[in-house]
Amino acid sequence: MTLEQLGQRAKAASAHLRTASTADKNAALLAVAARLESDMDAILEANAADIAAARENGMRESLIDRLMLSESRIRGMADGVRDVVALADPVGEIVTGYRRPNGLCIQKTRVPLGVVGIIYEARPNVTSDAAALCLKSGNAVILRGGKEALRSNMAVTAAIRNGLKDAGFPEDAVALLEQTDRETASKMMKLNAYIDVLIPRGGAGLIRSVVENATVPVIQTGVGNCHIYVDRAADIDMAKAITVNAKVSRPSVCNAAETLLVHRDIANDALPVLAAALRENGVQLRCCERALPLCGEAIPATEEDWATEYGDYIMAVKVVDSLDDAAAHIAAYGTGHSECIVTDSHQAAQAFTLQIDAAAVYVNASTRFTDGGEFGMGAEIGISTQKLHARGPMGLTELTSVKYIVYGDGQIR
Amino acid sequence: MTLEQLGQRAKAASAHLRTASTADKNAALLAVAARLESDMDAILEANAADIAAARENGMRESLIDRLMLSESRIRGMADGVRDVVALADPVGEIVTGYRRPNGLCIQKTRVPLGVVGIIYEARPNVTSDAAALCLKSGNAVILRGGKEALRSNMAVTAAIRNGLKDAGFPEDAVALLEQTDRETASKMMKLNAYIDVLIPRGGAGLIRSVVENATVPVIQTGVGNCHIYVDRAADIDMAKAITVNAKVSRPSVCNAAETLLVHRDIANDALPVLAAALRENGVQLRCCERALPLCGEAIPATEEDWATEYGDYIMAVKVVDSLDDAAAHIAAYGTGHSECIVTDSHQAAQAFTLQIDAAAVYVNASTRFTDGGEFGMGAEIGISTQKLHARGPMGLTELTSVKYIVYGDGQIR
Repeated sequence: MTLEQLGQRAKAASAHLRTASTADKNAALLAVAARLESDMDAILEANAADIAAARENGMRESLIDRLMLSESRIRGMADGVRDVVALADPVGEIVTGYRRPNGLCIQKTRVPLGVVGIIYEARPNVTSDAAALCLKSGNAVILRGGKEALRSNMAVTAAIRNGLKDAGFPEDAVALLEQTDRETASKMMKLNAYIDVLIPRGGAGLIRSVVENATVPVIQTGVGNCHIYVDRAADIDMAKAITVNAKVSRPSVCNAAETLLVHRDIANDALPVLAAALRENGVQLRCCERALPLCGEAIPATEEDWATEYGDYIMAVKVVDSLDDAAAHIAAYGTGHSECIVTDSHQAAQAFTLQIDAAAVYVNASTRFTDGGEFGMGAEIGISTQKLHARGPMGLTELTSVKYIVYGDGQIR
Repeated sequence: MTLEQLGQRAKAASAHLRTASTADKNAALLAVAARLESDMDAILEANAADIAAARENGMRESLIDRLMLSESRIRGMADGVRDVVALADPVGEIVTGYRRPNGLCIQKTRVPLGVVGIIYEARPNVTSDAAALCLKSGNAVILRGGKEALRSNMAVTAAIRNGLKDAGFPEDAVALLEQTDRETASKMMKLNAYIDVLIPRGGAGLIRSVVENATVPVIQTGVGNCHIYVDRAADIDMAKAITVNAKVSRPSVCNAAETLLVHRDIANDALPVLAAALRENGVQLRCCERALPLCGEAIPATEEDWATEYGDYIMAVKVVDSLDDAAAHIAAYGTGHSECIVTDSHQAAQAFTLQIDAAAVYVNASTRFTDGGEFGMGAEIGISTQKLHARGPMGLTELTSVKYIVYGDGQIR
């Protein structure tokens, strides 16, 4: 099937989904979950072929692990789909409603986006996660996964479509683009007639490529150069716990902290404690001139360090003269993802939250909480680092748009 | 000044605006309004030069009229800026706030977008309108107007910047791109480092060019191929009043109706009445085969007619077999702007509002109401016909984003 045909079919399916009841969408999700389990053998077989090919091509074991499915992982995917059943349906919410002086009754009503395109890299579990969230929010979805996971994604998509069929839903509500070449991806990014929004999920290179090539509206996700700012009024024990957690609890994710900024008035007391705790957790420190003598074993930071999302057991450390200096550093090098101040000063907390321009700004809590689950959304399709439409973790509500429904009794203008 | 410098300065100014109080922003707006009036002579002189050049280049009189400023038009622009003072400031609103089981207090808070880029055509009043709405919502703005209005736009911008200076605001909060060539416009569309969102205001060609070229997120505005569907349960007098109003009250605007769809069961009674009323108002009718014999003087419609936004005293007319047929026609040819059903059937009204995928869906009211003022927003920066971020009339709220402010007492994950 051509991309154009895929788009046409997805759009047709989205018209069905737009008017589907919550009960029917939930029934479809349960049928999808059942099929993921009952079609498990086919999925495992396809995955084994992907794994074998990846090994042959010399893929790193850490990436192989992300690609690999097992019975328990597939049951986890099915359970993930069932979890979406329990989430509230955002569609149909009247966001605001009011009557105008001329008697017109205006209801701003939440509706599905229509057709969502997801471009992602090698994890096959994204296929079922994304499909479930799109279905629940009334959207059709066109998935374009990585080449390395193609067989797995095809098998997972086939199971999902079987489930949709079992539930009497149009199978075309979930489609996988089987051409994994770059040209077809580029065409997908320009398929404005059929795709309402594109969400890239993956590394910085993928996201940049989508932002640069797409004419379809894009929600940019992911990149996080996050900071912990230890204010002069910080509790040093709290600063230690938060900094260590933000750096080492999962260094590879986008909400992990990369740079530690410390107010000069507290640096002599705080930095030796913080540095020792980080080193004990295997973190290499890269320090500014003033921080270096306070941090024990460490190396000097270069300009490049301030701008780097390490995704690793490395942290840049800088002494700043003031909260304003910290804010200026964050404005210069941050990616607008998650920023934290540790302070007991109300004034400092208010100034920091007002000044910092990021999706999530924390006072006395780890940046690692920027996550749909942690924010109480139940599930997330990604974390937006742009300012249009959605910012921060995106749950079901962020997969919707609105329309104005206007009731009159013959009003003319 | 280069575009890059303009961007840097606008971004720096936006940091100031982000933390400005409503009172200070209002004071700045009043100072801007005062300057528009006190600097009137300079504006009129610049405008006279634009008009002279336009006449020399053979510009049509209807376009000359859009370009022309007068004392009363400039006072109108100043009053428009003062009107924005009275509007509620959306910034700082806590959209949702809740406490998580771990004690984290999450506040989703409305914040400015940052730097807004507006690309528009020949009307110099857009310069002050857009600047006022951006300032009130805490955004810096980079304006790029048409070549024909450059002198006028420069003079208006100079007055605005004088007003900002009078109020102690950074002048760079409002900047005009003085290079009106295409290459610089293209560069502006890719200035992701400094511009957070682009809003094109103008004809279909301009909007298409921005959508195709921009890597900065775009809010698409404007194009409207709007329909009136007269259901079999319609009141014919109401249908007549709404259809005539939607077509002729201002045919050139995007919320004017272009195609009339009539249910076959009411066509024999309704069409002669509707057609006569439209013809009396100077509307040429282009009819499908079934409508033609019922409409009196009319010409046959071609496939192209269904897809055309006439913007003129022309209306396409089609008889449909059912509400579903009407919905299918609208899905095929509509632009997702404003669609109307005239009916007294509750069931038909519900089916139409659920099925139709458009920014505004009307039951028994003219499509002409799709407008920020008519919707009670006080002012509008444009009408979005895309589904991301904003849909329908965009007021101050639509010029904002959100950030999550999260208060903890040492939470780690």
